[in-house]
Amino acid sequence: MPTERIRDHAGQGATTVAAHRRRLRADQARQLADLLRRQVLTGGYPDGTLPHEAAIGADYRTSRNTVRQALGLLRAEGLVERLPGVGTVVVAEKYPHGLDRLMGLAETLREHGRVSNEVRSAGPVAAPAPVAERLRVPVGADVLYIERLRRLNGLPLSLDLTYIPLDLGTALLGADLENTDVFRLLEAITGQPLGHAEITLEAVNADAHSATVLQAPRGSAVLMLERLTHLADGRPVDLEFIRFRGDRITMSGLLRRSL
Amino acid sequence: MPTERIRDHAGQGATTVAAHRRRLRADQARQLADLLRRQVLTGGYPDGTLPHEAAIGADYRTSRNTVRQALGLLRAEGLVERLPGVGTVVVAEKYPHGLDRLMGLAETLREHGRVSNEVRSAGPVAAPAPVAERLRVPVGADVLYIERLRRLNGLPLSLDLTYIPLDLGTALLGADLENTDVFRLLEAITGQPLGHAEITLEAVNADAHSATVLQAPRGSAVLMLERLTHLADGRPVDLEFIRFRGDRITMSGLLRRSL
Repeated sequence: MPTERIRDHAGQGATTVAAHRRRLRADQARQLADLLRRQVLTGGYPDGTLPHEAAIGADYRTSRNTVRQALGLLRAEGLVERLPGVGTVVVAEKYPHGLDRLMGLAETLREHGRVSNEVRSAGPVAAPAPVAERLRVPVGADVLYIERLRRLNGLPLSLDLTYIPLDLGTALLGADLENTDVFRLLEAITGQPLGHAEITLEAVNADAHSATVLQAPRGSAVLMLERLTHLADGRPVDLEFIRFRGDRITMSGLLRRSL
Repeated sequence: MPTERIRDHAGQGATTVAAHRRRLRADQARQLADLLRRQVLTGGYPDGTLPHEAAIGADYRTSRNTVRQALGLLRAEGLVERLPGVGTVVVAEKYPHGLDRLMGLAETLREHGRVSNEVRSAGPVAAPAPVAERLRVPVGADVLYIERLRRLNGLPLSLDLTYIPLDLGTALLGADLENTDVFRLLEAITGQPLGHAEITLEAVNADAHSATVLQAPRGSAVLMLERLTHLADGRPVDLEFIRFRGDRITMSGLLRRSL
C-alpha cells in the first residue's frame, strides 16, 4: 500500500529532522558551555553571578533554549547553581594546580588556603616489584607507605597513596605529616632539593569506596596523577598515586613546540 | 533492661569491627589496584594475561579477597576483563599523549596507529568575547569554527572544538582536515612553526550528548583539555576545547623542581 509507505517515509523524515535539530542544539549547547565554563573558572564573573539568559543569548548570538541547555551542562558539573530570584551563580571551588614546576600541594595552593592532611595509614610495607623497581630498592624490602586524605580549607581535595624508601621514611614518621608536604619534609631530611618527577595523568570514574572517602558522588570524575619524584642527585624517593576530585582541581601549564 | 543494652552495644561493636574490616579491605584493594593498573598500562603483562589470583596474592602479600576486589576495580574501569577458562586479560587501549612537547594528535600517537577526523562542522562564526580576546580579534569578527570527532584506528578518541582566526581559517577550509592535524596545516599555511601553548586539564563526567558522540557510557570520565596555541612569533592562532575519552588516553610528562 503506497499510502502507508509514504506515511512511513514522511514519519521517518520528520523524526530525522527532529533528531537533527536536537543534535544541532546539543552541539551548540556544548560549544557555549565550554566558553561559559572558562569564564566561570577564570573569574570572568567577579560578583559570582552570570548574566541573564537573554543577555547570554545576545552576547553569544544563540537561542534562549541553547543557553538554558548550556547552563544545564554547567549545573550538572557542579560549576553553577540556579537560585530563584537571583539567577545563575558560580558555586565551583576549582583550584589551579601548576603543571610547569614540581611542587607540593600546600606550596602550589598557598594563595588559595590551608592544606591539611588526615593520615589514614602510615607504616612499613614490603615493597612489591612495581614499587621496588621504581624506588630502586630490593623486592620485598620495607618501604614506608602513607595514605592521606588531603583537604584545602577543610574540603576534601585528594586521596594520596605514597611509597618512600625506608631510610628516609623512618625520619618522615616522626614529622608533622598532618600539616607539611612530603616534598618539604624530604628536602629537609636529605638536605638537598628535589630534582624532577615523571608524571602520568588520567581521568577515571571514582569507585564507590574512593568516592566515599573523597565525599564525592559515586562515579564522579577523578583526575588521577601518578608521580615518581627524584632528588636533585637523581635518586627516586617518592612514588605517589593521587586521586584529585575532578570538581575541585584544574592543572595548567605551558607546552613548547621545540624542546 | 541491662541485657538488651549489652546486646545492643555488642551489636554495634560487631558492626563497627565489620565496617572497619570492610574499610581496611577496600583501602588495600585500591592500593593493590593502583599497582596493577600501572603494570596493565605500561605493558607489564606482555602476553596480555594477568597472573592467577593466588600468584598476585603471593607477589603482593595480600589476601585472595583483596586481589579479587582490586581486579574488580580495574574491570569497572574497563582496563581488564575476566574470561572463563583463561583468567584476567588486559582489554584497555589507553594511549600515551605527551605533556612535554606541543604536538598534534596524529604526531603524538604516530607509533600507535592512524588518526582520522570526522568533521562534524566547519564554517565561520562570529567570535564571542572569550574567543575574540584570546585570539586577539575584534569581538563579533568572523573566526573559523571546526568540530571534529577524532579516531585512532577507527575508535573514537576525542571530540575537538576549534576556533581559528579567519585569515588562516579560510585556507584551512580547503585543506584535508579529515587526515591532517590542524597544527601541521597551520604551520604549512603560515610558513612558520608553532611556538607554545597554554593548556588546562580537567577531569569531568561526560554529559549525555558528548558521551553519545564519543560512544562512551553516559557519565564516563573525560579528560578535558583547553589549549591556546601560538605561532613562533607569539600570535595566538588556535583555541581548542578537547574532550578525550578517559579510558583511551593518558598524559605523561616530566616536571622539574627548579625552573
